[in-house]
Amino acid sequence: MREDSFFISKSDIIDNKITLSGNENEHLSKVLRYRVGDKVKCFYDNSCFYHCQIVSQTKNASILEIISLENCLANPKIKLTLFQGLPKLDKLDYITQKLTELGASKIVPFVSTYCVKKDNLNKMERLNKIVVNACKQCGRTSLLNITSAVKFDEMLGMLKEYDIVIFANEVDGSKHFRDLDLKNKKNIAIIVGSEGGFTNDEVEKIKNCNAISLTLGKRILRTETCAVSLASLVMLLLD
Amino acid sequence: MREDSFFISKSDIIDNKITLSGNENEHLSKVLRYRVGDKVKCFYDNSCFYHCQIVSQTKNASILEIISLENCLANPKIKLTLFQGLPKLDKLDYITQKLTELGASKIVPFVSTYCVKKDNLNKMERLNKIVVNACKQCGRTSLLNITSAVKFDEMLGMLKEYDIVIFANEVDGSKHFRDLDLKNKKNIAIIVGSEGGFTNDEVEKIKNCNAISLTLGKRILRTETCAVSLASLVMLLLD
Repeated sequence: MREDSFFISKSDIIDNKITLSGNENEHLSKVLRYRVGDKVKCFYDNSCFYHCQIVSQTKNASILEIISLENCLANPKIKLTLFQGLPKLDKLDYITQKLTELGASKIVPFVSTYCVKKDNLNKMERLNKIVVNACKQCGRTSLLNITSAVKFDEMLGMLKEYDIVIFANEVDGSKHFRDLDLKNKKNIAIIVGSEGGFTNDEVEKIKNCNAISLTLGKRILRTETCAVSLASLVMLLLD
Repeated sequence: MREDSFFISKSDIIDNKITLSGNENEHLSKVLRYRVGDKVKCFYDNSCFYHCQIVSQTKNASILEIISLENCLANPKIKLTLFQGLPKLDKLDYITQKLTELGASKIVPFVSTYCVKKDNLNKMERLNKIVVNACKQCGRTSLLNITSAVKFDEMLGMLKEYDIVIFANEVDGSKHFRDLDLKNKKNIAIIVGSEGGFTNDEVEKIKNCNAISLTLGKRILRTETCAVSLASLVMLLLD
């Protein structure tokens, strides 16, 4: 039996009822043609699914009664943050979708010297929609948090808070992934440059933040391939 | 100094000269505006780059003199074959590009019960172009070989020749990647289903071919994410 999931905001829940409106209600009633009595799942950015039954429908809203809560096991246990040199925005779409599926917690795009794009501000709504759809697809209820682009130096300042910082360094990366000690690392950051890569000065600055220079092998990976490959290694091996 | 690489066929080489024509010559002379005296690299599907100097140009061809050969270190040492349940073709484009970058040797699309598409025949030229461009991008000279789609049972018959067959089994995959013993495995196959997955019968048939059922974790990955993630793990950890 199908049971699609729908994204709500916490404020849509009052007592044991959820009021579904807007696009999600459109999708439920017009596209998927759910009707009163049907069962669906709802989630907002937290740890569980709300199993619901549709109790009434109007043109603009569906009222769902909460039957039970289910702790979502698909949510990541480790926290992976990708610091991504701002790429062309279609690549950022792609990275956002794939990292959500893979279980990353956060993407912080940053602007370095060789970035063509300088901000992703007007794309935030689109990116957040990609996150929600990827969550529905892969079955997680905690959203990936994608921030608007920060400056390179701001990014450096954020690295302190992580247990380990992995720097995909195609210039002089020395360590191999298999040599990394990730035991008991719960809060992991990876840094991937944009299409243009980094200036030597930027490479040195990153290294000086205790980042581990990692080689991704003999082939030069596109920035989006690099981000997805590294996230795959971390999440599939640790989570 | 820039040194772009161009794709040739073996027959373009006569003595120590290469005749570059067609699209590659268009790209060299019209797009990148290389001129007589400039140096470029050429490759066909083998182990090395041919470092050349342009000695003459006509409207339809450029004649390149071979200066030296360079063994291409970016070519994969292990052989990874992806057996991919035929997905929507834009996804196959994407998988083809990423697996070429990651160093896979071969992609064999197969048609199983839940595949929407039934063949990729009319797309071979397009797919091979994607392979060549990805090779140029990542710096390998040995092409990824993508075959036209085979039937599910034909695919099963091909599995014998591999040292290990890894089956991305979201239904009842039990082993984790970290539990796999890949030591001394040089010829590796991975099997990834299409968007629709497999019938129970198909799952059993694959298992009966000594395939190791691998779980890719708690989240359901799209077929293209699954293929790229698994290929990343194998290539970045082994090659």
